[in-house]
Amino acid sequence: MNPPGVAIDLAAKLARFAEHWSPRVVAEMNDYQFKLVKLQGEFVWHSHADTDETFLVLHGEMEVGFRDRDVRVRAGELIVIPRGVEHITRAREECHALIIEPRGVANTGEKTDSDLRAANDVWV
Amino acid sequence: MNPPGVAIDLAAKLARFAEHWSPRVVAEMNDYQFKLVKLQGEFVWHSHADTDETFLVLHGEMEVGFRDRDVRVRAGELIVIPRGVEHITRAREECHALIIEPRGVANTGEKTDSDLRAANDVWV
Repeated sequence: MNPPGVAIDLAAKLARFAEHWSPRVVAEMNDYQFKLVKLQGEFVWHSHADTDETFLVLHGEMEVGFRDRDVRVRAGELIVIPRGVEHITRAREECHALIIEPRGVANTGEKTDSDLRAANDVWV
Repeated sequence: MNPPGVAIDLAAKLARFAEHWSPRVVAEMNDYQFKLVKLQGEFVWHSHADTDETFLVLHGEMEVGFRDRDVRVRAGELIVIPRGVEHITRAREECHALIIEPRGVANTGEKTDSDLRAANDVWV
């Protein structure tokens, strides 16, 4: 766990893991967490009933698919996914993003049996 | 106000205002806001009794002064300032940062009479 009040270098933290779809916590703010994730390929359709979720793309680009449209999110852009809305993330080439969401949110939402379900609260 | 579920280009939003120490909201997630700010010079000592506060530096570098130390935060780094802890922000050259904190937090905290007190909830 990284203590508050210190500078956290996101690139240095990203260099410390390689796994895709495996968010790593780098900081906490109140009951929220900042998590780094590496995306490549296609995730799984899911939603989070109780919370919005934010992706800030740091490197590369990703797509957030909704049932009625796809949204491209490039490095330097952020997107807030509203609570309860089904979505899927995709990235043709490896993409790095910072996720901001409450502590305890699982990456696959209500899809608890997905192979892509990651352990929660893993720090880097 | 920018709707959820769209990509928000932070550089494009930064190009739309010039004022220092004047946070502009770009997105909301639950009861939190993402605010862009341009810093140059020295802010004012203050604290936020009820909440942590996060700065993610997008361009340039800033310093967060605490009573017992100074922390340099460069582009690509973030820092969480714990609730109730006195701090001051400084930037020798213009620095751009993304602030993440609950809706309604004032930039000067308990220093309500500061000349640097900015209007809250101003969107860009």
